[in-house]
Amino acid sequence: MAGKIKKIAVFTSGGDSPGMNAAIRSVVRTCAYLKVECLAIYRGYQGMIEGDFVPMDARSVNNIINKGGTILKSARCDEFRTKEGRQKAYDQLVAADVDAFVVIGGDGSFRGAQIFNEEFGFPVMGIPGTIDNDIFGTRFTLGFDTALNTVVEAIDKIRDTASSHNRLFFVEVMGRDVGHIALNAGVGAGAEEVLIPELDLGLERLLESLKRSKKSGKSSSIVVVAEGDKTGKNVFELKEYVESHLPIYDVRVSVLGHMQRGGSPSCFDRVLASRMGVKAVETLLEGKSNLMVGIIDNEIVLTPISEAIKGHTKIDHELIRVSDIMTT
Amino acid sequence: MAGKIKKIAVFTSGGDSPGMNAAIRSVVRTCAYLKVECLAIYRGYQGMIEGDFVPMDARSVNNIINKGGTILKSARCDEFRTKEGRQKAYDQLVAADVDAFVVIGGDGSFRGAQIFNEEFGFPVMGIPGTIDNDIFGTRFTLGFDTALNTVVEAIDKIRDTASSHNRLFFVEVMGRDVGHIALNAGVGAGAEEVLIPELDLGLERLLESLKRSKKSGKSSSIVVVAEGDKTGKNVFELKEYVESHLPIYDVRVSVLGHMQRGGSPSCFDRVLASRMGVKAVETLLEGKSNLMVGIIDNEIVLTPISEAIKGHTKIDHELIRVSDIMTT
Amino acid sequence: MAGKIKKIAVFTSGGDSPGMNAAIRSVVRTCAYLKVECLAIYRGYQGMIEGDFVPMDARSVNNIINKGGTILKSARCDEFRTKEGRQKAYDQLVAADVDAFVVIGGDGSFRGAQIFNEEFGFPVMGIPGTIDNDIFGTRFTLGFDTALNTVVEAIDKIRDTASSHNRLFFVEVMGRDVGHIALNAGVGAGAEEVLIPELDLGLERLLESLKRSKKSGKSSSIVVVAEGDKTGKNVFELKEYVESHLPIYDVRVSVLGHMQRGGSPSCFDRVLASRMGVKAVETLLEGKSNLMVGIIDNEIVLTPISEAIKGHTKIDHELIRVSDIMTT
Amino acid sequence: MAGKIKKIAVFTSGGDSPGMNAAIRSVVRTCAYLKVECLAIYRGYQGMIEGDFVPMDARSVNNIINKGGTILKSARCDEFRTKEGRQKAYDQLVAADVDAFVVIGGDGSFRGAQIFNEEFGFPVMGIPGTIDNDIFGTRFTLGFDTALNTVVEAIDKIRDTASSHNRLFFVEVMGRDVGHIALNAGVGAGAEEVLIPELDLGLERLLESLKRSKKSGKSSSIVVVAEGDKTGKNVFELKEYVESHLPIYDVRVSVLGHMQRGGSPSCFDRVLASRMGVKAVETLLEGKSNLMVGIIDNEIVLTPISEAIKGHTKIDHELIRVSDIMTT
Repeated sequence: MAGKIKKIAVFTSGGDSPGMNAAIRSVVRTCAYLKVECLAIYRGYQGMIEGDFVPMDARSVNNIINKGGTILKSARCDEFRTKEGRQKAYDQLVAADVDAFVVIGGDGSFRGAQIFNEEFGFPVMGIPGTIDNDIFGTRFTLGFDTALNTVVEAIDKIRDTASSHNRLFFVEVMGRDVGHIALNAGVGAGAEEVLIPELDLGLERLLESLKRSKKSGKSSSIVVVAEGDKTGKNVFELKEYVESHLPIYDVRVSVLGHMQRGGSPSCFDRVLASRMGVKAVETLLEGKSNLMVGIIDNEIVLTPISEAIKGHTKIDHELIRVSDIMTT
Repeated sequence: MAGKIKKIAVFTSGGDSPGMNAAIRSVVRTCAYLKVECLAIYRGYQGMIEGDFVPMDARSVNNIINKGGTILKSARCDEFRTKEGRQKAYDQLVAADVDAFVVIGGDGSFRGAQIFNEEFGFPVMGIPGTIDNDIFGTRFTLGFDTALNTVVEAIDKIRDTASSHNRLFFVEVMGRDVGHIALNAGVGAGAEEVLIPELDLGLERLLESLKRSKKSGKSSSIVVVAEGDKTGKNVFELKEYVESHLPIYDVRVSVLGHMQRGGSPSCFDRVLASRMGVKAVETLLEGKSNLMVGIIDNEIVLTPISEAIKGHTKIDHELIRVSDIMTT
Repeated sequence: MAGKIKKIAVFTSGGDSPGMNAAIRSVVRTCAYLKVECLAIYRGYQGMIEGDFVPMDARSVNNIINKGGTILKSARCDEFRTKEGRQKAYDQLVAADVDAFVVIGGDGSFRGAQIFNEEFGFPVMGIPGTIDNDIFGTRFTLGFDTALNTVVEAIDKIRDTASSHNRLFFVEVMGRDVGHIALNAGVGAGAEEVLIPELDLGLERLLESLKRSKKSGKSSSIVVVAEGDKTGKNVFELKEYVESHLPIYDVRVSVLGHMQRGGSPSCFDRVLASRMGVKAVETLLEGKSNLMVGIIDNEIVLTPISEAIKGHTKIDHELIRVSDIMTT
Repeated sequence: MAGKIKKIAVFTSGGDSPGMNAAIRSVVRTCAYLKVECLAIYRGYQGMIEGDFVPMDARSVNNIINKGGTILKSARCDEFRTKEGRQKAYDQLVAADVDAFVVIGGDGSFRGAQIFNEEFGFPVMGIPGTIDNDIFGTRFTLGFDTALNTVVEAIDKIRDTASSHNRLFFVEVMGRDVGHIALNAGVGAGAEEVLIPELDLGLERLLESLKRSKKSGKSSSIVVVAEGDKTGKNVFELKEYVESHLPIYDVRVSVLGHMQRGGSPSCFDRVLASRMGVKAVETLLEGKSNLMVGIIDNEIVLTPISEAIKGHTKIDHELIRVSDIMTT
C-alpha cells in the first residue's frame, strides 16, 4: 500500500447512469494531465477478475462526454462476493501494475470496493453514479439530474394526451427504495399527487385529492408513482382501485422504465462528472484512499466510503409540502 | 344543404395525435383568410351534440402550431352512434348557422362524418389525424412522423443502457392493427427484430435471429413489438419465452405507452397539417363534400371518405426486407 | 403600509428566462392555497404604471409550468426610472387594493423594486430570473440550468459537423459581464478553450492551446466565447486572428443568440421556481419585505435585495482548472 | 470494368448531413449480407487519393445509426479536380481490389464521381446526402428532414423570448441557392414571412406584411431568411432597414449556423438512409452504374447521375401560398 501511485484503473459498476462516460473521460484525462498511467477495466468487477483491461490515453475518451450509458460496460458479479473472486481480481491488478482504482457506481459497488480495500490494502476511490440519488455524502449523484429531465419530458408528452382526453394517468418512475426521482419529477411535471416509498399517505388521501382536483376544474391529472411506493399497490392496481372508487375518472397507466437510465447527460451531470473525476485522481495521488467524491453546496467534498454506504439519504419534506401547495 | 358556405366548424375526434393543433390553426386561419366564419367544437361529436361551440378568429390559434394534443379536446361519443344523437348534433349546428364541418381524426371519426353527411346532406371534410398511419388515401397521417421520432428517441435511450449491460429489450410500441410504427421505428432504431400484426414470423424465427445476433458479436439487442403483434404473446410473455429458451440472454421489457401520442409535432407534421387545413376549407368552398384530404407523392389529394374508411393500408414488404438486411 | 396582506401582485421584468412561468404559477397557486388574492401585472413595470392587471386564480396557471418565456410578458420601462412614473405605479396598485408584489427578474428589476419599497414603504419580494446566474445570494438563478442544456445541445450538434470536417469553431454564448454560461457549458460540451469576461488569458495562450490540441491528435476543436470576453475580440475577429496565425485550422463561427433564452425549462428550474414562489409568498405574509429568495446548498434562503444587487458573483476558479485539465 | 463486383468502397464527401452514418451503416451491412467485401474511404476523395482505406464488416458500424456527422469524415479535395489526382485515386482503388464505390454527398461530389466513371469506366453509385434538398431525382435528400426539425426547435425557443418581449426576429437559416429549408421551416415554425433565393418579394411587401401583422394584434413576429435570399440584404441589414422604416418594431437577429448540419437524425432520415444503402449496393451488383438512388412517392428510384446534377429542384409554389394564408 506504500509507494507512489503510477497507474490507476477506472471502471463502472452496477446500474448505468448518464454521466458515467463523462466521469470516465475525466479520470482518464486527469491521469494524462498528471502523467499517471490509466487503465480501463471492462464490465466492472467481472472484468477485473478476468483481466479485461485496456490502456487508456487522453484520446481514448474523445467524443464520449455527451454519450449515455458506459463505454466500459457494467455487469453484476457474484464471484466478487467471494474471497476467491476478490483474490483473482487482486492478482490481475497486481499483474497489470495497477496501484489504485476509481469505481463509478452505486452503493453495492462501493461495498465491494471497501471490502477489497480492507482485504488487500488496495487504494480505492468512489464516484457516485446512479440515477436514484440515494448515496449519502453528496447532494447529487451522477445521472440524477438527467433522469429528472427525461422523466419530465416524457410526462409533458403524456400530459398532452391526458389533457386532450381529460384523463388521469398513473406514471411509474424508477426508485425502488427512494422517492427522489418521483418527488422532484412530480413537482417538475406538475403532478397532482406523488407516491413514494418514504411515505404512506394512504389510498383515501389519494381519492380525496383526486376528488378535489376534479372539483377544482382541472382537465387532467398525473399521479407520479415510485416503483417502491408504500401504498402496497402497483400502478395497475392503483388504476383499478381508482376506477372502482371514482368511476368518473378515465384512468391510464404508463411505466416509464429503462429509458430513464439512458440518454445524453445534462450539462449539470457533465460538469459534475468532470469535477468528480479530477478530484478522485488527485485524491489518490495525495495518498488517500477509501473515500467517495461528492458535491455539497457546489463544493467537491470527500466522504469515507464506509459512511457513504451506511448513511441514508432523506426525502425532502419541504419539497413534499411545496408539491401539495402546487396542486391547489 | 345547397347554398354558399359561410360558416365552417372544426373539431378533433378519437385518439389525439401531434399536429392536430397545427391543423386546427390552419382551418381557422384559412377561414379568416377567405373571410368565412369559423367555429370550434369542443370534445368532438359529444360537444357537437351539446352545442359546446366557440367562435374562432385568426388570433384564437396563436402559438399552438408547436403544441401536442388538441386544444379542442377529444372524446368518445356513444350517443352519436344513435340516430337521436346525430339529430341533436344536426340541430345544434343549424342553430349555430354552421354550413359545413372539418373533422380531424381517424377512421372511426370519419365513419361518423359519413353517416352524418348521408343522413342530413351536411357537407363534411376529413383530415387524417392519427399516429397509426392506417388511413387509406394518404401516405402519411398527421402525427405519424412525430410518433416515429418519439419512439426512436426513447429506444436510443434504452439502447444506451441495453448496450452497457449487454441486454435484450422487448420494446412495445403502439399499433393494435397495423405495424407501421413498429416497422419504421424498428428500422430507425436499429432493432434486431420487429414483430407486427401483419405478419406472423413465428417464435422460432425470433429465437434463430437472437442466436445469430449473439453469435455475430452484438453487444445488445432491441426487439420492437407492435401492440397487436401476431405471435400471440405480449412483451412480458415474450420475455419469459426467450429467457426459458435462450438463458444466455438477460431480458428486459419496456412498454412505451401514451407518451407516443404527445409531444411537439415535427416540422413535417406541422407543414402537412398546414397544407391539409387549407385544402379542406378550400374544397368545402368549392361545393365539394364527403372527402378526405391526403398526401401522396408530396401532393395534396382528395379521396372519398367512403374509400378512406374501407380501404386498407398495406405494410411495406420492401421495408421488412431492408430491416432484415440491416440486422446482419 | 402596515396591516395584513390580502392581495399580492406578481410580474416578470427584464430579459425573460426559462422557469419564469413556473415561478408565476407557484406564486399564484401559493396565494390560492393560503387564501390570499392574486393579481398578475402584464409587461412588468410598464404594465404597473398603466394598470394592466388581471386577477389570477389557481386555474389561470394551468399547463404553463413547462412553457418557456413568460405569459405575463416583459418590457423595458424608462418611465419607472422617474419619480412620476413610480407614483403612477403606486396609485395603480393602491387603486387595485394590492398590498405587496413579487417581481421575477434580474438585478435591474430588483433595483426598481428596492427604490419603490423605499419611497412608498410598499412590501416587495424578488425571485431571481435570468439565465446569466449573476445574482448574489443564490447559487442558481431561474433559467441558468436550462440555458446550459440548450447551449450544450447546440454545441453537440456543432461538434458533429466540426469533427466530420476537422474544423475549429468559435461559439459565442450569452454573458456580457459574467462567464458562468460560457464556463459551465464549455466544460459540459468538452470545449478546448473557454473565453470569459472575468479573465483575460491572452491571445497567445489561445494559440498555444490550439497548437497543442492539433498536435495531440484531436479531430476538432470548440472554443466557447462569452459575449463580454476580455480578449477584446469578438468571435469573427477571433476567427480571422487564428486563421492568420494558424493557417492549418479551418475555422468557423457560430453565435447561438436568443435561442438560449427560450425553451421548456429543465426539471431543476421547474422545481427551483416552485420552491421560490412558495417562499416568496409566505415571507410576505410573515410581514417581511425587500428580500430576495435564493437557493444555497439546496436550501431556500433569503437575502436583502440591497445586498443581492450590490454583491458580485464570482467565477469558479476551480472549474477553470477542471476545464484546463479536461482539454488534455 | 466488366466482371463481377467483389469489393465495394463507401465514403462521404462535401458538407456533412444527419443520416450519413445511417447510410454508411446500410452500405456496409448490405455488403455483409450479400457477402461482398466492403472498404471505407476516409475524408472523401482526398482519402481516396491517399489510400486512406479501412476494411469494414457488419460490426464496424454498430451504434452509429443515431449519430450525426460522418464517422468517415469529409473533406474538400482540389487535387481530385485534376486528371493526375483522379489517376492516383484510381490506382489506389485498383491496388486495394476495389471494384466499385458508393459516394454519399451532394452534387459537387456526384460531379466528381461522374467524371471518374467516364475516365476509368469505374462503377459508381450516388446517395444524396445534404441538408439543402437541392438534388434532382429525389423528393428528399438525407438530412433535410432532420435539419427542418433542428430549425423549428430553435425557432420555437426564439419564439418564447420574442413573444415575451413583443419582438420581431430575423432568423437566418441555411440555403445559399435554394429556399427549401427556409420555406418548410418557416411554415413549420409559424413564421410571418419567408425570404428565399427563388423569389424576390421586395422589401415593400415585407414592410406591408409586418404592418398588417402588428395591426392584427400579433404579439411577436418571426421572419425566416435563407442565406441566399434575393432581397440583396442580409439579416443584419434587414434589421436596420425595418428599424428605420417601422420604428414600432423592436428587432433582433439570429443566425442559426452550423448546428443545422448536426444532430441525431430523425427517424425519417434513418429509414431513408437504410433503404438507399440497400438499393445502392444491390444496383451495383446488378451491373449498373453511374446512378443516384432517390425516393419519389415513397418508392426508391434510380436517376442517372448526369441528370441528377443537371436538373434543378423547384421551390414549392403551393407551399408559398400556404405560408401566406397561415400568416393571416
